Amino acid sequence: MTFAEATRLDLDGDSLRGEIPPGWDIMGNANGGYLLALAARGATSIAGRPDPVTITGHFLRPAQAGPVSITGEVLKEGKRFATVLVRLAGKPGPLVVALATVGELSAEPGPVIHAALPPQLPPPEECVPIEPTDTFPPPFVGRIDLRLNPADIGGAIGRPTGEASMTGWFRLRDGEPLGTHTLVMATDSFPPTTFNLDIPQAWVPTIELTTHVRGRPTPGWLRCRFTTRYISDGFLEEDGEIWDEIGRLVAQSRQLALVPRG
Amino acid sequence: MTFAEATRLDLDGDSLRGEIPPGWDIMGNANGGYLLALAARGATSIAGRPDPVTITGHFLRPAQAGPVSITGEVLKEGKRFATVLVRLAGKPGPLVVALATVGELSAEPGPVIHAALPPQLPPPEECVPIEPTDTFPPPFVGRIDLRLNPADIGGAIGRPTGEASMTGWFRLRDGEPLGTHTLVMATDSFPPTTFNLDIPQAWVPTIELTTHVRGRPTPGWLRCRFTTRYISDGFLEEDGEIWDEIGRLVAQSRQLALVPRG
Repeated sequence: MTFAEATRLDLDGDSLRGEIPPGWDIMGNANGGYLLALAARGATSIAGRPDPVTITGHFLRPAQAGPVSITGEVLKEGKRFATVLVRLAGKPGPLVVALATVGELSAEPGPVIHAALPPQLPPPEECVPIEPTDTFPPPFVGRIDLRLNPADIGGAIGRPTGEASMTGWFRLRDGEPLGTHTLVMATDSFPPTTFNLDIPQAWVPTIELTTHVRGRPTPGWLRCRFTTRYISDGFLEEDGEIWDEIGRLVAQSRQLALVPRG
Repeated sequence: MTFAEATRLDLDGDSLRGEIPPGWDIMGNANGGYLLALAARGATSIAGRPDPVTITGHFLRPAQAGPVSITGEVLKEGKRFATVLVRLAGKPGPLVVALATVGELSAEPGPVIHAALPPQLPPPEECVPIEPTDTFPPPFVGRIDLRLNPADIGGAIGRPTGEASMTGWFRLRDGEPLGTHTLVMATDSFPPTTFNLDIPQAWVPTIELTTHVRGRPTPGWLRCRFTTRYISDGFLEEDGEIWDEIGRLVAQSRQLALVPRG
């Protein structure tokens, strides 16, 4: 099943209907990035604008496979952007609430200033493909094509490197084209950076995830970097950067997560 | 007028009433961090929990001095956290919509891992105090006590350093104590990082601002660092870090803003 199919929404009166298919999960719960992409699809659809520009999701409860509904409220209709509140609900109730600004992304004239470089990675064929199992790696990674940088692989095989970093390549399977909604999912698609730290391990519960989309990616692989700089008081941030094959920064993300208690 | 007075909210039926006082503005429009702090005050008040943990605001229109109302909707009531949707409106209509997770912050046991240091600053008395005028610096800076790092002052006096950075000290005036709501305001209280770049200058319109609050600050000065790494396609991010006097990271922020068109 493609990403496009897994995030398809159909109009149903005042709301949108979709379906979380089986297999987009981490230990039974749908991946947060996938859910935020679904919410982003709702936001752009409701506002009638093609691209998510920024979206913040708060995760209200774990989401299992099954039917979902999305309701949206356009809070502002501007010339360039619209702001939309989106509620994604499943059978047990509300799953995700999201605030999004949406619009049409195009190459804007103006300064390009980068104070940091894209992550330096070996080519995809020299990186480590992640293939799913029923448990770990989780089914979700079978929906995407992930190639981890060998330098960061330690955390995924129980040998933490000591650096809270995960870098690698991302694309969809079977040549499915990338879009701006894919970027939203990609910002939560890698193993947690904390896998590379020598701390008690468990999946990291996300409180909120914000993704900024800067532009439409060129076809090909996405070059991705996730890092955590500060773990304290039970919280950590995970910052993501996604670059396309021609070296453009196409998305940035930050999530606030709880430190795993092991 | 203190920060506490400027963000006071009174219950009025199902909503809260407040007042944006004159003088908390940048060229006539209330400062975004102040507005987000007001929304955070609404969120914690409505949920009956003391601290904002994470809050994201989307700015719908410029806000002028005058009465405001806040309505809130508790989307999730958890043991540790509640999630709240907050709408801040003034006379002309909706001003800010915000999604917040709130709770009670306390020192949590667990790992403390910092991959970066707090900004190195000269002591406050060797930094540059910013005093307000009717235009520039704007009235808002008179509500806070800001001391800019001399190394970054160039951008505030028309001599950009070339590095998109603003660092310095923050506290409230007249010894008013800091709280977690103050941190929300502080994350949007410094001159834009872009003042230090040789690009067309203008105030930077914020699309969204997200602040994560890690902990309650100890009394004293806050050590602050704001940086921008990527300017492209008409957008830029500004990342903030706020440390208290004993060297604890107490807040992190990121905003998505439009590149000034001069």
